Amino acid sequence: MNFSLSREYAKGLDQQDSLASYREQFVINESDLIYLDGNSLGRLPKSVIERMKKAVEEEWGTDLIRGWNKGWWEASTRIGEKIASLLGAAEGQVVVGDQTSINLFKLATAALTLNSEKKRIVTDTFNFPSDLYILQGIVNLLGNRHEIIRVGAQDNDITPDLAVLEAGIDEETALVTLSHVTFKSGYLYDMAYVTELAHRKGSLVLWDLSHSAGAMAVELDKCNVDFAIGCTYKYLNGGPGAPAFLYVNKTLQNHVTSPIWGWWGQSNPFEFDLNYQPAPGVQRFLAGTAPMLSMLAMEEALTPLLDAGMDALRAKSILMTDYASFLTDHLLAPLGFSLGSPRDSARRGSHISIRHAEGYRINRALIDEMNIIPDFRDPDNIRLGFAPLYISFAEIWEGFDRIKRAVEEKRYEKYPKQRLMVT
Amino acid sequence: MNFSLSREYAKGLDQQDSLASYREQFVINESDLIYLDGNSLGRLPKSVIERMKKAVEEEWGTDLIRGWNKGWWEASTRIGEKIASLLGAAEGQVVVGDQTSINLFKLATAALTLNSEKKRIVTDTFNFPSDLYILQGIVNLLGNRHEIIRVGAQDNDITPDLAVLEAGIDEETALVTLSHVTFKSGYLYDMAYVTELAHRKGSLVLWDLSHSAGAMAVELDKCNVDFAIGCTYKYLNGGPGAPAFLYVNKTLQNHVTSPIWGWWGQSNPFEFDLNYQPAPGVQRFLAGTAPMLSMLAMEEALTPLLDAGMDALRAKSILMTDYASFLTDHLLAPLGFSLGSPRDSARRGSHISIRHAEGYRINRALIDEMNIIPDFRDPDNIRLGFAPLYISFAEIWEGFDRIKRAVEEKRYEKYPKQRLMVT
Repeated sequence: MNFSLSREYAKGLDQQDSLASYREQFVINESDLIYLDGNSLGRLPKSVIERMKKAVEEEWGTDLIRGWNKGWWEASTRIGEKIASLLGAAEGQVVVGDQTSINLFKLATAALTLNSEKKRIVTDTFNFPSDLYILQGIVNLLGNRHEIIRVGAQDNDITPDLAVLEAGIDEETALVTLSHVTFKSGYLYDMAYVTELAHRKGSLVLWDLSHSAGAMAVELDKCNVDFAIGCTYKYLNGGPGAPAFLYVNKTLQNHVTSPIWGWWGQSNPFEFDLNYQPAPGVQRFLAGTAPMLSMLAMEEALTPLLDAGMDALRAKSILMTDYASFLTDHLLAPLGFSLGSPRDSARRGSHISIRHAEGYRINRALIDEMNIIPDFRDPDNIRLGFAPLYISFAEIWEGFDRIKRAVEEKRYEKYPKQRLMVT
Repeated sequence: MNFSLSREYAKGLDQQDSLASYREQFVINESDLIYLDGNSLGRLPKSVIERMKKAVEEEWGTDLIRGWNKGWWEASTRIGEKIASLLGAAEGQVVVGDQTSINLFKLATAALTLNSEKKRIVTDTFNFPSDLYILQGIVNLLGNRHEIIRVGAQDNDITPDLAVLEAGIDEETALVTLSHVTFKSGYLYDMAYVTELAHRKGSLVLWDLSHSAGAMAVELDKCNVDFAIGCTYKYLNGGPGAPAFLYVNKTLQNHVTSPIWGWWGQSNPFEFDLNYQPAPGVQRFLAGTAPMLSMLAMEEALTPLLDAGMDALRAKSILMTDYASFLTDHLLAPLGFSLGSPRDSARRGSHISIRHAEGYRINRALIDEMNIIPDFRDPDNIRLGFAPLYISFAEIWEGFDRIKRAVEEKRYEKYPKQRLMVT
């Protein structure tokens, strides 16, 4: 696509954007703020305000314990099905509850137990460190009988070497687990290809969809995926720390159990039987009572996303990241930036990283002085997230213009090189 | 104490109640409803409405990702310290996050790992079935090398036989874990005595405080307790499914790790190191990002409780359960009821069970026809919870009067004997 550098051109893209009006469904209190961190915490959909008011005042305040029989009890599966529709998962395979790390713990442990004669876990250095920690904890818990292979890649690599990944998966591999979209470069794995690669060697596959759910149509069933997990506070706009989802392929459900035998995963939780019997189906992977206010806010937040449809969202997402790559090349490369994300949109999620030797200090200047919120990831990545529901092309143009000015004016030089905690 | 049966007498008790005005701090939309299920889901404190509005509109809506640096990130420890003050725990031992079952999983697994040369887990049949499930899951996960002893007690027993418990704890016992207040009869274990008993045999101790936190002053440090967990949606009024707390005794913290190596429990979560290093102290038992809306609602809900003080709350709680026992004996016993809870208030939590052969059907009639909400637990227990912050003595009198009328008028006879799901 041939883009142009002018602000007017960006406005023209907005005029042609069939999703442009969805921005009005979101709370935007600070009109000057360029918010490019929807890949970390999505904006607040307006309708969530009323929904939370109802959840607090009517459901908790008036219904009290009766709320459990008026929709709370079913929330895990009801919301699970809504998310399933974004993931290409037929009914009865997705539930919501607990946090991403907990759900990864449950499913990875279940996978290793199912494939217990094999002792290798394959992942990569592009994966979330938080996912690697969970895997390390499981290996420790199970007596250090497993080996974790973190398929090579230097910290600066943008795309993995699939030949190396393929070589890493052998007949001893119990589980291959990767981030579908990697958190730094935004590289998007070919789910069908990698899943098939792993299955060919008899390995199970678990995908972390935290950066793909809500940003593109995922095809879990079609790709024959075994397990998947993901958070709901990024592109799904579920709110800070909103509960996570998990997917277990129908064909595996009755062959695996959760390591956490929780009463929400018990077959007859209200019989108060003293011995655990796993519920049929994916419900057995629920643990304790889900945090209902966070659950209901997140459910409501899905509404505009479900309405817009993933195909239109993905098309806009690709156009935005293509456009941002173009602006990186033409406005920022002369200032020492380089694109830290794949150029092929088929292999890219909905954020890009722009790299600069002074990335850390530039990022601070952008937040403190330019009213733009990206985020920073070591060693030199400024991440820019493009949530297709509420980001406009004019906003992207304005964001790049501010980044350009911040660097041209050397605004970052006053900041210490020492890292501060930045979420 | 000598009570009297008249309605006027109950009103007199309210006039002498120094905590009576706290009722005004709670949302009570339906003035005719007698809500005696605060031991399952506490009522909504009014100030939570404003707090949630602020959390949604200002913090999520306006602060967006910056919310993490404006109080969200510290919420787990900040709220933990508030709850610690109710549990007799010095600073640095309580954190909040995840659900009760998850926290039990983490701490019980840590305890068994610490005491790995011993293979016995002692609990009892009074414990929450949900806790028993978690223990069974851990034993299965760790290769069925442990044995769970459920210390005797028939389903109809009100108090455990401490001699039997003592005999059950031997030199092979790795962990003793019990509900501090048992969920059916409301029996309150002597924490100091049982903890000492277990320690004498070299066992660790883990208490589930779900029915005691917020109902009485707990003395974890003084009793030298090793581990504790508990939910926050009962007497702490934290809202449906609000996240749970956990306590790890300072002396043990650096000798144990969580089986779930989550990034919130990592020593430097924002360095994105690829290898897990547990954080110092109790923080290492945090897992993933906490569900912040549910967390913040719960934090606000603690305000009236912290203000009233546990000593005054416990005194009122005892007076209420004594009074309810008196009304059971004098109004209900002639109708076939018996008290299913300890008569000694020193051994009783803040709810009582009243037992009746038709308990299940009576409970349904109470809910459907008498506008009173207790709950039912097999085989014949109608549980009446007395949350000291918002229950009045007049309400208790009215509740018992309605129960009496429901049974006298045989209102329950039209309901099927078959069980329906009741939370």
